[in-house]
Amino acid sequence: MKTYLDCYPCFLRQALDAARFAGAGEQQQTVVLRDTLATLHSLDPTTTPPEIGDRIHRQVRSMVASRDPYRDVKRAATAQALDLLPWMRETIRCADDPLDTAIRLAIAGNIIDYGHNPDYDLDATIDQALHQPIGIDDASDLRGALAETRVDRTSVLYLADNAGETVFDRALIELLDLEVTYAIKGGPVLNDATAADALQAGLDSVATVVSTGADTPGTILHRTSPAFRDLYAQATLIVAKGQANYETLSPGDDRVFFLLKAKCPVIARDLGVEPGALIVKQGSRA
Amino acid sequence: MKTYLDCYPCFLRQALDAARFAGAGEQQQTVVLRDTLATLHSLDPTTTPPEIGDRIHRQVRSMVASRDPYRDVKRAATAQALDLLPWMRETIRCADDPLDTAIRLAIAGNIIDYGHNPDYDLDATIDQALHQPIGIDDASDLRGALAETRVDRTSVLYLADNAGETVFDRALIELLDLEVTYAIKGGPVLNDATAADALQAGLDSVATVVSTGADTPGTILHRTSPAFRDLYAQATLIVAKGQANYETLSPGDDRVFFLLKAKCPVIARDLGVEPGALIVKQGSRA
Repeated sequence: MKTYLDCYPCFLRQALDAARFAGAGEQQQTVVLRDTLATLHSLDPTTTPPEIGDRIHRQVRSMVASRDPYRDVKRAATAQALDLLPWMRETIRCADDPLDTAIRLAIAGNIIDYGHNPDYDLDATIDQALHQPIGIDDASDLRGALAETRVDRTSVLYLADNAGETVFDRALIELLDLEVTYAIKGGPVLNDATAADALQAGLDSVATVVSTGADTPGTILHRTSPAFRDLYAQATLIVAKGQANYETLSPGDDRVFFLLKAKCPVIARDLGVEPGALIVKQGSRA
Repeated sequence: MKTYLDCYPCFLRQALDAARFAGAGEQQQTVVLRDTLATLHSLDPTTTPPEIGDRIHRQVRSMVASRDPYRDVKRAATAQALDLLPWMRETIRCADDPLDTAIRLAIAGNIIDYGHNPDYDLDATIDQALHQPIGIDDASDLRGALAETRVDRTSVLYLADNAGETVFDRALIELLDLEVTYAIKGGPVLNDATAADALQAGLDSVATVVSTGADTPGTILHRTSPAFRDLYAQATLIVAKGQANYETLSPGDDRVFFLLKAKCPVIARDLGVEPGALIVKQGSRA
């Protein structure tokens, strides 16, 4: 997805947020702000939002000398989600359509996104996600693809998004009862899940946790490791969580199912839905 | 009030909004965005938010060659408010405490602020304003000052804020039944009321409408006309509407009563209230 002009104010706010999460003082925040203004001014506007985000957050991490500004909020988000896991399992187990409920919960967990809004309301989002109509609904195609995976004894490549959201993914993966490879980031960026975050969330108990080898938002394939690119090339079913994966991966690959909450108005407009919509979107057969 | 770092993303959004309200195309919007980034980078950070806003909106007006990008939305806002005027008068007339109700309505009208958020909800704001507790409540001091004005046969200098909000001011001024000088901007900036906007709202029927002589947000005194500065110096009671007047006028002048809705989180923090609070704040006796 291309970068829209409305993304720029958001990047500026993200840079300030990141500096603050890293504990930067007022003076250091000012330096971050001014450097971000200069970076945004100098950037090639044809780059995707996650590529710009990558550059800005890398700059902030270097300026505030913090490897992982979001470490504490990621840990807290994962702990909060783990508290909900027994309830999630029970809700899925008792549902008329357990897969539908598990998908809705996995999308609801996508609200835990410090790039979009650090003041998210998780409980309200879950409540709403269990009942609201799905904005783009390719779930029947996803069901078909999952059934084929079962018959063919192949596996699912599941591209993680944020720490905490991981636990919602875990509840879905537990229900699937398929071989799943769960791909997390190769290093900290925003509140995206790294290996440590996935382990805290217990993903290793339900999936093979692998690293993309990249520490960029989303999945910028040429920035990932050769091993991950092989994995991606050979996958037959890919579940890609969150806005940044939607922004970076090809929309023309029908192996990919994008699961996300269209939180940002710019992404919602790009998808043709209202902000806040739940999305289960298959890459289109080109 | 000083400029906070959180103001910068907001200025960037305002510049884009202004370009769009002026009908600028995508390419022209891109130029506006890039020039605004450069301006924000080069600005002296000790200037107040309305001074920065002044510079940015002046730049946008020049770039998009529009004298008044907000002309159409100002006209529509004034028309919408005029439709409410009979209801406002009746609500004030029937209230247990008409002055309290008129003040609450005048503050509710302050939501019509395209600098803060073009997607404001006027009806919800009015409903809430009639019942919510007032965040900073110097209304008894304002009542005292109004009573003195009546006894001394002096007048009220009323500093307007936005087009449309003017009609809510009119309902309050009608109730006061005092001599009022209503000061509007000397030229278009954001959706602030100019002479044309005040006349559309019928303010000339209840007050002497004068120009500050300046086309900056708020009241930056050294930018106003000598005639207005004389008026300001001689005033015994000044009602200053909106955030920008609070940001620009001296907080140490006890002739001034700031009436505003603290919409912006930065201003709310500066005032020590929750965002959305209603404010009736007298300048403190230094």
